[in-house]
Amino acid sequence: MPRVLASRAVVAVHIGVIGEGRCSRRVAARAERVGAAIAAAGAVLVCGGLGGVMAAASRGAARAGGVVVGLLPGVDRSEANRWVTIPIATGMDQARNVIVVRSSDAVIAIGGMYGTLSEIALALKLGIPVVGLRTWTLRQPERRRVPLLVAATPEAAAACALRAAGTRRRARSWLA
Amino acid sequence: MPRVLASRAVVAVHIGVIGEGRCSRRVAARAERVGAAIAAAGAVLVCGGLGGVMAAASRGAARAGGVVVGLLPGVDRSEANRWVTIPIATGMDQARNVIVVRSSDAVIAIGGMYGTLSEIALALKLGIPVVGLRTWTLRQPERRRVPLLVAATPEAAAACALRAAGTRRRARSWLA
Amino acid sequence: MPRVLASRAVVAVHIGVIGEGRCSRRVAARAERVGAAIAAAGAVLVCGGLGGVMAAASRGAARAGGVVVGLLPGVDRSEANRWVTIPIATGMDQARNVIVVRSSDAVIAIGGMYGTLSEIALALKLGIPVVGLRTWTLRQPERRRVPLLVAATPEAAAACALRAAGTRRRARSWLA
Amino acid sequence: MPRVLASRAVVAVHIGVIGEGRCSRRVAARAERVGAAIAAAGAVLVCGGLGGVMAAASRGAARAGGVVVGLLPGVDRSEANRWVTIPIATGMDQARNVIVVRSSDAVIAIGGMYGTLSEIALALKLGIPVVGLRTWTLRQPERRRVPLLVAATPEAAAACALRAAGTRRRARSWLA
Repeated sequence: MPRVLASRAVVAVHIGVIGEGRCSRRVAARAERVGAAIAAAGAVLVCGGLGGVMAAASRGAARAGGVVVGLLPGVDRSEANRWVTIPIATGMDQARNVIVVRSSDAVIAIGGMYGTLSEIALALKLGIPVVGLRTWTLRQPERRRVPLLVAATPEAAAACALRAAGTRRRARSWLA
Repeated sequence: MPRVLASRAVVAVHIGVIGEGRCSRRVAARAERVGAAIAAAGAVLVCGGLGGVMAAASRGAARAGGVVVGLLPGVDRSEANRWVTIPIATGMDQARNVIVVRSSDAVIAIGGMYGTLSEIALALKLGIPVVGLRTWTLRQPERRRVPLLVAATPEAAAACALRAAGTRRRARSWLA
Repeated sequence: MPRVLASRAVVAVHIGVIGEGRCSRRVAARAERVGAAIAAAGAVLVCGGLGGVMAAASRGAARAGGVVVGLLPGVDRSEANRWVTIPIATGMDQARNVIVVRSSDAVIAIGGMYGTLSEIALALKLGIPVVGLRTWTLRQPERRRVPLLVAATPEAAAACALRAAGTRRRARSWLA
Repeated sequence: MPRVLASRAVVAVHIGVIGEGRCSRRVAARAERVGAAIAAAGAVLVCGGLGGVMAAASRGAARAGGVVVGLLPGVDRSEANRWVTIPIATGMDQARNVIVVRSSDAVIAIGGMYGTLSEIALALKLGIPVVGLRTWTLRQPERRRVPLLVAATPEAAAACALRAAGTRRRARSWLA
């Protein structure tokens, strides 16, 4: 990791994974494959650090040798699932969802309960690319197009998010 | 107001109004009527304190003699629209959306861009009733029912939110 | 209150009162007099909404007919002390201290445990005037002067805070 | 790092370093030695991610092969100093100070302006050990003892913080 630090240009890409804290085995299996693909690409996985989709994605990334940042809603770092490398206790309840999104170059939404929906919405609000894997379908009241990318498989979701993250980074470095 | 303080039992109901920071005249007219109906019922209007739907609802409430709490994303209280009675500078950017929802007994979503969607999702997550007035249509991936109440007119939205707020309060005081 | 809204120029001054959640009767008596003096001057009292110094100041202000904003650390508005007019549930634990300070034109620190010290420090950091009433004594390592105003009585503390708030507001409106 | 994940019992200790965003060379040299000592002990350095003391400590840790978490106040991860391994954009302004403290097993305060003082206070409030290296001198109004540990050299500060972090962890695992 220190070698990476030699130049800011190669600082790691961060991919957020958002999804419910309890999930079926089928959804967990998908999340684990997403995590593995993120780690295989050398990106850091950012998530909410708890169970369900978060734990499955963390496990996939950790087993593939990746770094997992867990941004916890509570005040105790020991609440993180055991595959989190860097547990951060925000003590800010649902407001930590904003930090998960802010600290990602792109996010992947898997399945979906309301917390996931709030993170999809925050990412759209902040202009951070969102890839959905069997997640919410949204229809805007004035029928404007919602830029939610849709992927059919975990690997396609990871590839799509990594590509979108790269495009966004290049656009920002042009602007800067 | 001080007379209200004599007993906690009669502390004011808070109704949140969520909606985009820029909106058409038609949407603003609806928001203003919602604000007026909230104030006429003696409830406090809680909102994000900025323009568009927030300003229109604030104006409606203020003109009807109501109290308007504006929870601002920025650090400067003077950014509040001029109808806000109590401007609160959170300095927490989008994380203030969580506070808007948390501090309401029920919320009314009007029109809708992404910030509004995030607040709808947070309210659903936190079990706070949401009434939609020409807002997002949401379909959960596993097709579970989303408890988003739908109103046809501003006055119906306010009445529905006030009723849901009352029901929720009574349920909570039974539990307590 | 609605009449105030006719012009932004006369929007109410906010004075924060910071102090421990449990306190002796002597400290509570001082806090109550501070709250009464703030309300008598027509200013809004902003505090953390809980017990001890916060409750005593709230009581003083409410009995004098003032408005009391309580920015709570937890998620439940019913945790506010009974003299709070506008309870706001931030759900952000100690991070709500930042909002208390940000939303005040000047703050008064009474007595002092660690939470109070954090709020004194945040106010100094953000350039918001702080008046101390039997509170912490601070010595900066390089012995720079710390601009902590010291008052001998509750009424002097309120007067000093109101004066500092006015000076700060005028300075800011000149800049704008 | 993945090998560490095999058991939660050996998850890395987090040591926070808090200090001003601009500092003299002398203070920077101390901070760099603190960072190096933290990394040499295999602990993760947690800081605010910006310049001054934060950058110097980050540099010391990164050069010694350590991991540096930077919890930024702003919304842009590229604001992190170049020695931060894991930049987190909280977008929460000074409220990020709470997260720095919450996510550390012990903190070291170096030099000191007001932001540092707020972090010292928050750590004391939350029961997280604080080691001071030429930092604030605090006197509580009722003259209770303030449990601020004092170190004479950077290496002593790191050793003291690591020891306090270990003691706290053992105490907590006994309680759990």
